[in-house]
Amino acid sequence: MRNFISLKDVENVQELVNEGIRQKKAPFAEQALGKNKTIGLIFFNQSLRTRLSTQKAAENLGMNVMIMNVGQDSWQLEMEDGVIMNGDKAEHVKEAAAVIGSYCNIIAVRAFAGLQDRAADYREIVMEKFRQYAGVPIVNLESATRHPCQSLADLITIEECKKVERPKVVLTWLPHFKPLPQAVANSFCEWVNQTDYEFVITHPQGYELAPEFAGNAPIIYDQNEALKGADFVYGKNWSSYTSYGQVLTQDPSWMITQEKMALTNNGLFMHCLPVRRNLKVTDWVLDNQSVVIQQAANRQWSAQAVLKHILKEL
Amino acid sequence: MRNFISLKDVENVQELVNEGIRQKKAPFAEQALGKNKTIGLIFFNQSLRTRLSTQKAAENLGMNVMIMNVGQDSWQLEMEDGVIMNGDKAEHVKEAAAVIGSYCNIIAVRAFAGLQDRAADYREIVMEKFRQYAGVPIVNLESATRHPCQSLADLITIEECKKVERPKVVLTWLPHFKPLPQAVANSFCEWVNQTDYEFVITHPQGYELAPEFAGNAPIIYDQNEALKGADFVYGKNWSSYTSYGQVLTQDPSWMITQEKMALTNNGLFMHCLPVRRNLKVTDWVLDNQSVVIQQAANRQWSAQAVLKHILKEL
Amino acid sequence: MRNFISLKDVENVQELVNEGIRQKKAPFAEQALGKNKTIGLIFFNQSLRTRLSTQKAAENLGMNVMIMNVGQDSWQLEMEDGVIMNGDKAEHVKEAAAVIGSYCNIIAVRAFAGLQDRAADYREIVMEKFRQYAGVPIVNLESATRHPCQSLADLITIEECKKVERPKVVLTWLPHFKPLPQAVANSFCEWVNQTDYEFVITHPQGYELAPEFAGNAPIIYDQNEALKGADFVYGKNWSSYTSYGQVLTQDPSWMITQEKMALTNNGLFMHCLPVRRNLKVTDWVLDNQSVVIQQAANRQWSAQAVLKHILKEL
Repeated sequence: MRNFISLKDVENVQELVNEGIRQKKAPFAEQALGKNKTIGLIFFNQSLRTRLSTQKAAENLGMNVMIMNVGQDSWQLEMEDGVIMNGDKAEHVKEAAAVIGSYCNIIAVRAFAGLQDRAADYREIVMEKFRQYAGVPIVNLESATRHPCQSLADLITIEECKKVERPKVVLTWLPHFKPLPQAVANSFCEWVNQTDYEFVITHPQGYELAPEFAGNAPIIYDQNEALKGADFVYGKNWSSYTSYGQVLTQDPSWMITQEKMALTNNGLFMHCLPVRRNLKVTDWVLDNQSVVIQQAANRQWSAQAVLKHILKEL
Repeated sequence: MRNFISLKDVENVQELVNEGIRQKKAPFAEQALGKNKTIGLIFFNQSLRTRLSTQKAAENLGMNVMIMNVGQDSWQLEMEDGVIMNGDKAEHVKEAAAVIGSYCNIIAVRAFAGLQDRAADYREIVMEKFRQYAGVPIVNLESATRHPCQSLADLITIEECKKVERPKVVLTWLPHFKPLPQAVANSFCEWVNQTDYEFVITHPQGYELAPEFAGNAPIIYDQNEALKGADFVYGKNWSSYTSYGQVLTQDPSWMITQEKMALTNNGLFMHCLPVRRNLKVTDWVLDNQSVVIQQAANRQWSAQAVLKHILKEL
Repeated sequence: MRNFISLKDVENVQELVNEGIRQKKAPFAEQALGKNKTIGLIFFNQSLRTRLSTQKAAENLGMNVMIMNVGQDSWQLEMEDGVIMNGDKAEHVKEAAAVIGSYCNIIAVRAFAGLQDRAADYREIVMEKFRQYAGVPIVNLESATRHPCQSLADLITIEECKKVERPKVVLTWLPHFKPLPQAVANSFCEWVNQTDYEFVITHPQGYELAPEFAGNAPIIYDQNEALKGADFVYGKNWSSYTSYGQVLTQDPSWMITQEKMALTNNGLFMHCLPVRRNLKVTDWVLDNQSVVIQQAANRQWSAQAVLKHILKEL
């Protein structure tokens, strides 16, 4: 594997899921692979799980890790070509990516959607510039439209927890007062759509995801209907794609509760975290019928599977 | 040792002091102990000595170190149970501690007192939540009411410097314009109270420490009287415990000067640092009759003793 | 080598340049040298290249690295002696440097010029205090008046790229709207002035550098005249030294363009980065006739040469 920016970079998803499960069983078995190799973790946005799990996975594989918060440790970066740089951005990504690439064997980047300009966000300008200029493999630590390290951890978790061969997986929108990116939901759809799980999406009218991500998954606007018989309830808030970046409703009836979970097939609640308790999902659900901690813990093995596959081809 | 949150976690203080002194003599002798083990250093507040000495101690023992500034690298964390999380805290400590615990073998946490709500501070909510949810040992890097890594380094320093078997140790309040936590003073009392040193506390009226920390140590409100014959003068400012978090006086006559030190038995000035020169203690004292650098340097060995004892029982 | 604060600390510049070129060829050949040695990277200002290249170089040599952003990770530091510390600086450099020195074998410090008080900046107070109090070697990661790690990388780059034995090197001022320090320009002059390159400085009237740095290099106020036949065009903006810290002009005709480069001997554009495109130099020059990425990449080898020479004498 050369890059891990989206699902398109993955030859064999099932093999990557299996690799994650193997790494979990023997975390330190391949430390020679990363010896004298360095990964740079470049954060344009805050992070908890991604920061720690990627650092840990890289060190498990014997790598050195360098971390930089853009705009805090370093200056802000200009992403647009051809501009006169007379604003607050002191360096162009053309130089920054190439320079970081000269110090690192792999660069991993987090850069959220701005949610102002849909075309710009969906062009994935930060990832694409790094891919273009860094000269080394790029790992997506959540970009404007995708979060593939999360999606891989999600699939690992479902594989570990599923009780039937072909579980019913429901992606449900959750209420929130702030506009959040579509990246996690997009990416989850993209990855689940290539499994043979039964997959259903539920959200209020106006929250339809981009067609290239939602694919052919059925959309059911009645949450209760969608949840019936679910083995996994994947909750996430996102802002509108069609009315881009807007919060169209905060309808609290979309919060996942014990009553909602009673509609499922003794289903397990999943969420990428961080999750706002009693706003998106109740304490009871998180404390009694969820796998969110296992899912977050699997971020370590998802990252380790990805880094191993990239290291092997360096 | 399972945790190192307070003195109560320590079976044998003298043995831990001796361990610190042993680690100082052979810093790299036990690197196998920490191999493939990771410590997470989680900072809710700024740090210089604690950050660097704990990282160094962990690396001396062969560990990997991951550092996270909460609210800067990551989001803010909610500590209260049962709340509707619709404010500025995006993640609950229940999830955060468990997730960090899934990546780390030990978690070390710094979280100062808020100084607004005494009951909340003295409940030690952050340490207790991490202890409850992390699933791995917790090390206190200064909490609302204690700073045990500092106290252990203080005892190591006194043991190294004492000229009599049972030195006279005086804890003296120092003036400051800002309200500071009681943690260092509390912790110093807690640790010294279980030695057989002669221990005296001096501070202005209204600055009495919590009884569970001050214990039976005599309080002398006349600083000059208290300093007489002291072998060690441990200076620290703290805000009022009884009028919680308030600055009752900034009386400059409490500053430690050459004249004050002349009252002692050629005593040595100690302070946990940072110290404001010529506000709390004069240049002359720091530059001529103090062991503050040795004391800070011993933070490395205090941390290393603690981590070794925890690693041995992992 | 004991310290690397300025050129004065270097016995043999040519040997250090050669060491950089050797390290580039065999980056991991001397990992035993840094085993159980720790470098502290202390940043009073932002950094991209310096942060990452120094960390990488140290790890290539087997060292452990601890990084601290002053005022962000830790408190602000007081630099002046004898003051009553009742402001926003909680710790004095006397303590901070000594304490950091107790945890580290080498300390590397970045602290830019304040540009308010020329005498203070040119006294190099931060570097000198660290040199005085740390008790371990100090590496300058850009100080008020110098950036020697950059200058060494610059010489390595010129040595790698030069087509004649004695190339013509032109240092040219570039336009910018913000007042920037003189450090990079000063340091470049200081280092080039001890080579036998043909060296010319060009800038608008009023931008004369301090005589101790400019030395005897000819100043040509006509940029076009200066560029004629240049093999290397080293661009940099700096604020006025004589009207200290002021922006006297932003004259856009000083921007380096394809037309300007046509005056040279097929010269190569150099810049320490970050560089503001189309303000200081055009896209065309950076994308077609520059070695800025190679120059930045050489920061790794410049740092590694410096650290190796210091480690050898520890």
